[in-house]
Amino acid sequence: MRISDIGEFGLIERLKSILQSELIGDDTAPITVGKSMLLLTCDLLLQDRHFKLHYPPSAVGWKAISINVSDVVANGGEPIYCLVSLTLPDLEVRYVEEIYLGIKKACEFYSCQVVGGNVSKGDKLCIDVFMVGKAERFVGRGGAKIGDGVFVSGTLGDSKAGLELLQMEKKHYEDFELRLIEKHLRPTARIDFIKHISKYANASMDISDGLSSDVEKLSKASQVKISLFSDKIPISQELVSFCKRHGKDPLEYALSGGEDYELLFTHPPERLNPFLSMVQIGFVEEGEGIFIDGKPLKPTGFDHFRVV
Amino acid sequence: MRISDIGEFGLIERLKSILQSELIGDDTAPITVGKSMLLLTCDLLLQDRHFKLHYPPSAVGWKAISINVSDVVANGGEPIYCLVSLTLPDLEVRYVEEIYLGIKKACEFYSCQVVGGNVSKGDKLCIDVFMVGKAERFVGRGGAKIGDGVFVSGTLGDSKAGLELLQMEKKHYEDFELRLIEKHLRPTARIDFIKHISKYANASMDISDGLSSDVEKLSKASQVKISLFSDKIPISQELVSFCKRHGKDPLEYALSGGEDYELLFTHPPERLNPFLSMVQIGFVEEGEGIFIDGKPLKPTGFDHFRVV
Repeated sequence: MRISDIGEFGLIERLKSILQSELIGDDTAPITVGKSMLLLTCDLLLQDRHFKLHYPPSAVGWKAISINVSDVVANGGEPIYCLVSLTLPDLEVRYVEEIYLGIKKACEFYSCQVVGGNVSKGDKLCIDVFMVGKAERFVGRGGAKIGDGVFVSGTLGDSKAGLELLQMEKKHYEDFELRLIEKHLRPTARIDFIKHISKYANASMDISDGLSSDVEKLSKASQVKISLFSDKIPISQELVSFCKRHGKDPLEYALSGGEDYELLFTHPPERLNPFLSMVQIGFVEEGEGIFIDGKPLKPTGFDHFRVV
Repeated sequence: MRISDIGEFGLIERLKSILQSELIGDDTAPITVGKSMLLLTCDLLLQDRHFKLHYPPSAVGWKAISINVSDVVANGGEPIYCLVSLTLPDLEVRYVEEIYLGIKKACEFYSCQVVGGNVSKGDKLCIDVFMVGKAERFVGRGGAKIGDGVFVSGTLGDSKAGLELLQMEKKHYEDFELRLIEKHLRPTARIDFIKHISKYANASMDISDGLSSDVEKLSKASQVKISLFSDKIPISQELVSFCKRHGKDPLEYALSGGEDYELLFTHPPERLNPFLSMVQIGFVEEGEGIFIDGKPLKPTGFDHFRVV
């Protein structure tokens, strides 16, 4: 039996059962140190899987930090320290320095600090970041309560459209296309939601694999049914323009597109904060499974070992 | 200018100056959380660089944990939590499970716990471990005092001989050869030295790149001269047998061979603990540079980007 037979998440389940750890399964692992709660996480960007060498290196560095900050924020924490583990071929020094300028810029933006790391030689460039955050309260994906509203922090599907535009390698991009590309290259972790998540959310995670997949994970972890309404899912004007031009369905992008790094969380509907860009897209109900407009929703998001 | 023009450590110096972090430069990064001191570190094993796919996978898992524990121990801490970031091709599930059995065994041995991680698809298997330790006192490589003795925790050069034996792919190995191979495949971090390092050492690091290189790093960081005595450097009977058979010099293996994961530390000579396997191999003196038997010692250890 190969990994592709059981998929990324099948593999993780088996490895979890070997380790018998109850801490594994959320975006971050909460640990208690004295009276403090720390959140630990790691995520990486690998050349030719997550980025190409011709992408702006500072954007790659920025994104490597952002995807980790996103995990910490999703669980209600703020980032404090990180380590950068770099595997790289014999590149131009300038290129590596540009990556680090992106890392530095991101750390300044998110108020965290690189305190160490490691450099190894390898065939492909890989930036593996380990992030430590601190939290007052851990908010995982397993706490959704019946009656909660299901919320997202921003428009979905933009990153997928941006990636497809990048892959077209056009000579000229229009402004709305550049904005979609920017969403893919330089996602911003929603640090503006830290206090809201920490204070009010019953369940929370970031949308890195695609809304439909991630809603399913939240539903399973919380052992609840989740019903979404397609007309509530926030879609950007840029994505609408992109889909019109290419004969695509924006909803399909919003449901299956990964790497938006928006937040998915639940709490009572009345906790909606009009000063944050949050939108209620559904409800938590008794039962199981995920539904959209009353029909079962099939998860179509990203699995490392099952993509074509 | 390419990375190979300035080497691994030249690159690290440039990246450090971009980040302007004073915490970078030791085996671990000490951070303070409430009243606790935590040590953060990461290190990885990459297929075809640090191991081959035909090595026993449980040994690869064991070693991935051990090399990180070694860094924590070197700075006077004990390991508590770790994350495992796995990049892997579409391997047999059983193979990955064997790696995790090795990881689990190591974590049980070292009394630490895997609390999370990440799985990505890639062309080569890579096990990147992020370790969190706790310490009463941080002991870095920069604290050596004039008059200190220089100590190591065990025999050196065995791992290099073990690697060369593995590369010979012999049909039959003798017992002493198997013991050398075992030293390479399954190094054990010196957790028996944690209290001693934490209590008495002025400077400490682990020997991962080779004694001569690592002594030079300690000497530079502490701004002291270090004088070694070749007849004091502990060499195993197995390495002597290996060198006799292959016409090699054991001292050369001890000075340049990496991956022994023994500890290198300094403190007043009278602090020698006869119940630990520690050996004094030299002295810390006023001045700069590293010497052996009165002559300058050239660092011949491992640099990822300068090896042939």
